Amino acid sequence: MKQLDWNQLDESARRDALARPTQSRTDDLSGGVARIVAAVRERGDDALREFSAAYDGCTLDALEVTEAEFAAAEAALDPVLKAAIDEAAARIEHYHRATASKPVAVETAPGVRLERVVRPINRVGLYVPAGTAPLPSTALMLGVPARVAGCRSVVLCSPARADGNCDAAVLYAARVTGVHRVFKIGGAQAIAAMAYGTDSVPRCDKLFGPGNAWVTEAKLQVSVDANGASIDMPAGPSEVLVIADELANPVFVAADLLSQAEHGVDSQVILLTPSKAMIEKAASEVEKQCAELPRSEIAVKSLAQSRLILVDSLAQAVDVSNRYAPEHLIVQVQDPHALLDGIESAGAVFLGEWAPESLGDYCSGSNHVLPTYGHARSYSGVSVSSFQKQITVQDVSAAGLRAIGPCAATLAAAEQLEAHRRAVTLRLAALDARETTEASP
Amino acid sequence: MKQLDWNQLDESARRDALARPTQSRTDDLSGGVARIVAAVRERGDDALREFSAAYDGCTLDALEVTEAEFAAAEAALDPVLKAAIDEAAARIEHYHRATASKPVAVETAPGVRLERVVRPINRVGLYVPAGTAPLPSTALMLGVPARVAGCRSVVLCSPARADGNCDAAVLYAARVTGVHRVFKIGGAQAIAAMAYGTDSVPRCDKLFGPGNAWVTEAKLQVSVDANGASIDMPAGPSEVLVIADELANPVFVAADLLSQAEHGVDSQVILLTPSKAMIEKAASEVEKQCAELPRSEIAVKSLAQSRLILVDSLAQAVDVSNRYAPEHLIVQVQDPHALLDGIESAGAVFLGEWAPESLGDYCSGSNHVLPTYGHARSYSGVSVSSFQKQITVQDVSAAGLRAIGPCAATLAAAEQLEAHRRAVTLRLAALDARETTEASP
Repeated sequence: MKQLDWNQLDESARRDALARPTQSRTDDLSGGVARIVAAVRERGDDALREFSAAYDGCTLDALEVTEAEFAAAEAALDPVLKAAIDEAAARIEHYHRATASKPVAVETAPGVRLERVVRPINRVGLYVPAGTAPLPSTALMLGVPARVAGCRSVVLCSPARADGNCDAAVLYAARVTGVHRVFKIGGAQAIAAMAYGTDSVPRCDKLFGPGNAWVTEAKLQVSVDANGASIDMPAGPSEVLVIADELANPVFVAADLLSQAEHGVDSQVILLTPSKAMIEKAASEVEKQCAELPRSEIAVKSLAQSRLILVDSLAQAVDVSNRYAPEHLIVQVQDPHALLDGIESAGAVFLGEWAPESLGDYCSGSNHVLPTYGHARSYSGVSVSSFQKQITVQDVSAAGLRAIGPCAATLAAAEQLEAHRRAVTLRLAALDARETTEASP
Repeated sequence: MKQLDWNQLDESARRDALARPTQSRTDDLSGGVARIVAAVRERGDDALREFSAAYDGCTLDALEVTEAEFAAAEAALDPVLKAAIDEAAARIEHYHRATASKPVAVETAPGVRLERVVRPINRVGLYVPAGTAPLPSTALMLGVPARVAGCRSVVLCSPARADGNCDAAVLYAARVTGVHRVFKIGGAQAIAAMAYGTDSVPRCDKLFGPGNAWVTEAKLQVSVDANGASIDMPAGPSEVLVIADELANPVFVAADLLSQAEHGVDSQVILLTPSKAMIEKAASEVEKQCAELPRSEIAVKSLAQSRLILVDSLAQAVDVSNRYAPEHLIVQVQDPHALLDGIESAGAVFLGEWAPESLGDYCSGSNHVLPTYGHARSYSGVSVSSFQKQITVQDVSAAGLRAIGPCAATLAAAEQLEAHRRAVTLRLAALDARETTEASP
């Protein structure tokens, strides 16, 4: 890991210090994905079966997971793992229910009542990767808020193994969250199937979930097609930024850095600390712990693009962190709450030495689908709101129209939108006529 | 306007009946916009000045609106219009404050406290078109929620007229809402400038606002670039759907249909009613009122792609409306509230005969930047939340880690993420060691 002193860097070196690994949408990738999407739109299930054979190495007859397969998956699952999935689902539901949007009603003028109502997105599609390892936790993180939101059709796609089955833990997690239908489809073809629908796979209004470069590119492509589907957020490699003071435990700091580094070779981890000693200790602990990891080869590569940065104060650490806008921000300092007000951009924040990121990844109750690659500057993590729409309802009485109609008419006239103006003035005239009639003997 | 009977249509004819005018991203448009974006990224302000000369027909020295220009705009403005802008801004602020996200805190297990905090998006860019007419109301609809959200840098771009000035009402509205800086730039070049920054225009994290096909395409292009900016929502032509019963006033129904039809030749308006007589009356009123409009030429063209559809009941009207997912839904029936629960997808809903859409467009307090083109299936209109991020903060005590750590460790092991597991188990071991020490004599 590169060691840097923030206050010795000029602006360009600072930019380099916080630069993320380049994510380029190569023409090869875009073209390849566009061909897959086109094939799925043209040939539907046949194309899906061909891609499953080519990419997942499995021959599928039915694309949908059957009741018998769900039952077999549940029967095969370690009871300890089942209990952990149940436990995590319950806590995720607890937090997500608490943070769901509530309806609001307010009178903005006498007779003008505005109500904000909340409606589920009817048809949602969830993608759960199963590349280097299956991710039942992602099924929980997407399935639970979809259920809390009340989505009517919740579809989940996850690639099958070569034996034609999906991972048992993913299937069990999907069932626990109440996902309605699961399909054994992966990659860009799964995204295309959910965005446009096939004979087997129902069309979805919005797609959620992480994935590799092909999945990410497919999500982008369907999201910019007016006849495609919207998506949760742009994806990028996982990342963590740790702020530590001189009293932090370097064993914990190193463990947290490594828990992101093991994700993928393009993951990035950053330590910010005002303590020179902490940089030395964390570096040596990272080296020591990394050697013991089964995925140390991946971690070593991602550590190569990672940084241990000396800052002059915790306040400066917060500034640098805000500039980076990390997906995960771990604050291992004596008084972590004192820094919270200054934190502006992060996907999720973990306070204190007993809050490893892994808790949020799995079972504290918060969502682990978070904005990466600096998108935390403008995006939030997935929540129940991601599965809902908010609609403003305007309930206006005759008195309300009298109160605010003239203002609308003036603005419509200024914008040269005469029909907008008349929709108001015709009604005001009708009210006047009515009053005249009522007032006459 | 085409007249149709929903129950006489087969599925394919129903699809046609609700089809929107095609929005195709032609290669010409994409390529043209990509060249503009590239020019702005490469040559910054120089490129902006060239495009202003070429497209807006004006020679600009300074791109930013000066204090003197703001003062001159305010001095030149009709006091009645000024008052209307002030009045609308106050009501928009009232509603937007009431619907802003609140922080939430919840304990999901003993010692595991999750807090959802809300932070403004720091740097936002607003686009206010001034094509066929300037739109001060759009400056209000974007500027007010940006201020309520607490955004630190609020930039607004709007094209200059040939005389090198921006519209006075737009400038006044921008000032009323507290927009920090206004630039006299329009079109795709304005979007590029705000997404990437130039010497004059500050770079923004998220861009908002409607625009023509060039602006829309530019927003899409910068939104799929990881180094670009995020956007409020995909744009499309404006549209209204009116549900009317046999007792509705056809004069009001026609006025509401026309208030969308005058927007642009690609606008679409739809009437759903169980009353044959209403279809006849609305058609003849539309014809009569349309002839009186200054923009009747536009309205006639958009009416050509619009429909008057007979349904068998108000319940069926709601079903058809949900399928269409209109930007604006006006419900002119005797008991409009009875239909509200069934309404699933719409940008904004207007209940009863005294609630023309124009009120929501200008001054009831709700936002008029709404999802069009069926995007109401998965998008909400612009709100304060559009200018904010929600961050989950995890505050975990040693007891909390003990309570939920084993669940996280089990799930991490199932996902073969050993470093994730160890970030938990190392801490649990440290707690055990500490207790042993404390327990010894």
